[in-house]
Amino acid sequence: MFENRNKRTELSGLGEFGLIRHLTKDIHIKNSSTLKGVGDDAAVLDYQGRKILVSTDLLIEGIHFDLTYTPLKHLGYKAAVVNFSDIAAMNAFPEQLTLSIAVSNRFSLEALDEIYSGIYLACERYGVDFIGGDTSSSVTGLMMSLTVLGAASKADITYRDTARIGNLVCVSGDLGGAYMGLLLLEREKKVFKADPLVRPDLEGYDYILQRQLKPEARVDIIRKLRDLRIKPTAMIDISDGLASEILHICTGSKTGCSLYEEKIPMDPATMQTSYEMGIDPTVSALNGGEDYELLFTIDMKDYEKIKDDPDLSVIGHITDQSGGMNLITRSGGQVPLKAQGWDAFFERREEKGERRKEK
Amino acid sequence: MFENRNKRTELSGLGEFGLIRHLTKDIHIKNSSTLKGVGDDAAVLDYQGRKILVSTDLLIEGIHFDLTYTPLKHLGYKAAVVNFSDIAAMNAFPEQLTLSIAVSNRFSLEALDEIYSGIYLACERYGVDFIGGDTSSSVTGLMMSLTVLGAASKADITYRDTARIGNLVCVSGDLGGAYMGLLLLEREKKVFKADPLVRPDLEGYDYILQRQLKPEARVDIIRKLRDLRIKPTAMIDISDGLASEILHICTGSKTGCSLYEEKIPMDPATMQTSYEMGIDPTVSALNGGEDYELLFTIDMKDYEKIKDDPDLSVIGHITDQSGGMNLITRSGGQVPLKAQGWDAFFERREEKGERRKEK
Repeated sequence: MFENRNKRTELSGLGEFGLIRHLTKDIHIKNSSTLKGVGDDAAVLDYQGRKILVSTDLLIEGIHFDLTYTPLKHLGYKAAVVNFSDIAAMNAFPEQLTLSIAVSNRFSLEALDEIYSGIYLACERYGVDFIGGDTSSSVTGLMMSLTVLGAASKADITYRDTARIGNLVCVSGDLGGAYMGLLLLEREKKVFKADPLVRPDLEGYDYILQRQLKPEARVDIIRKLRDLRIKPTAMIDISDGLASEILHICTGSKTGCSLYEEKIPMDPATMQTSYEMGIDPTVSALNGGEDYELLFTIDMKDYEKIKDDPDLSVIGHITDQSGGMNLITRSGGQVPLKAQGWDAFFERREEKGERRKEK
Repeated sequence: MFENRNKRTELSGLGEFGLIRHLTKDIHIKNSSTLKGVGDDAAVLDYQGRKILVSTDLLIEGIHFDLTYTPLKHLGYKAAVVNFSDIAAMNAFPEQLTLSIAVSNRFSLEALDEIYSGIYLACERYGVDFIGGDTSSSVTGLMMSLTVLGAASKADITYRDTARIGNLVCVSGDLGGAYMGLLLLEREKKVFKADPLVRPDLEGYDYILQRQLKPEARVDIIRKLRDLRIKPTAMIDISDGLASEILHICTGSKTGCSLYEEKIPMDPATMQTSYEMGIDPTVSALNGGEDYELLFTIDMKDYEKIKDDPDLSVIGHITDQSGGMNLITRSGGQVPLKAQGWDAFFERREEKGERRKEK
């Protein structure tokens, strides 16, 4: 609804090898760990004794994204970045990416180019090598499967099930914005569908739109933690909402937690839109998802190192398992935290557009 | 058309985390290179200085496979094995596998279990660890994306673009059988569609059906070559037919080749069915695809080591590029080799069910 493409080259005009050549012709290898990228039966990597992190992700049109308001370049960028975020969540840096993509004949070469340009832009910005994949036609729509590889020393790797009682719970950036961006886009889509002459009203919503359409992976936070000589005791990225992710940490670590509502970082634009939509901002942060911020626990001794950092918030602490997992509200009440995450097989909540992984 | 399932459990009854627990509960890690499999943001691997091979593959219902005659367990097995074959084609061994899968609500838990049981059986047989993936609902049908990782020392890795003039061209096993199996299944499907009371006539076709429905990756050949102290000068697996693959080797290596029609190994069952179908058996071998045998070149000095091996055939030799790529026919004629491979964007040859990779 926000795009207009003029040129259209049918994919059938290139043949598959021609298409692959076209799509991969400008790739330059950036990492010394990449010995061979696109072009053989397999890519060849050399991690020289460092540990290898592998994560994979599936994105399906109509389930995970809606092309009526997602520009193709943004879609490619986001698809790559959310995978990079999984590697960051292990306290590591992404180095290689594969993309398998299937498209119906509805998609032209120019459309594919847009998707790949987003993928390549993300690879460029994050220093990641694109090392191959698979291309295919599909019966309906667009489907992407991405696999990212990253590196870390064994000592640096941070799992989600290793939080300890007394640890502080920290979060990077702010929460709830991506979900507000999604609700806004869905609202304007409905308006547009009802009357195509009404132009979408997206003025002044730049921040939450960017949070939804062009999120970033917080590898900058990983670098910062290295500089501060902080190794988190446990870490996860926030793809499904704060509540779902802290439950993963606590359940895995066999602990409880107390989170303080007033400490949950939120941007004013997110709060304002949340009120506009009639949603409690805290609910947006707890259950919204797709923020791709990092949720991690640190030893109390590291508190001084981060307490004045505007990009890191201490939002609670890890407790004994018997204490349960609780939110301490602004009024001082205590509410049990529940994951309201999206469930791919219970209901198809397309309007949330969330992703779910084997984690 | 060959299956009847009785029990049906809706996926919606489990929830996604329940589903993932169910599907991954019996996984046991086999390789010391797998430090952490399913259960965190990323799997963690340790290759201890060995090189890493990565290959990925996309399989879409209606494009790459037809569930009317493909049992789900076979589908899972084959999906894994064809990925293992890509690692074998690098003269290496597969060690880890990820599977991302999307299914529509047409699929029950029992159906998913069947697919995974095939995947796990392949992992068991090939000593591969299943380390994670992604699950999702789909708008239509079944989609799988697999990524396999394997290991080799730098000295062992064999690329496709390093054949040298005078090298012998070798192939493992026999060719054309998988394609004949596919044509047979397609034929019986048509008969069945015309009259559902007619039972499929598959008696006596076991070999070609197995070649199509349950291929194997020739890691046994890789082991044999190690034992014989042969390092191929170039190697590729035959997923698209002999002609297409030898063209990859010759084009990449900037050489020509002469292949001898009479030397191309074919099983009698394949030849017989080929005649039945009115197809020249040589055409089946050259263009059929999906045999997943290995095509490789060796130095002349290694000839003595393999000449009596019933599982390896020398089918020609590498020539100067100016000589072109030719088939020497049984009658002594010379025919230029052409890739008749499937092209995903030119035409959708569903009846061939072939896969195509970025190679």
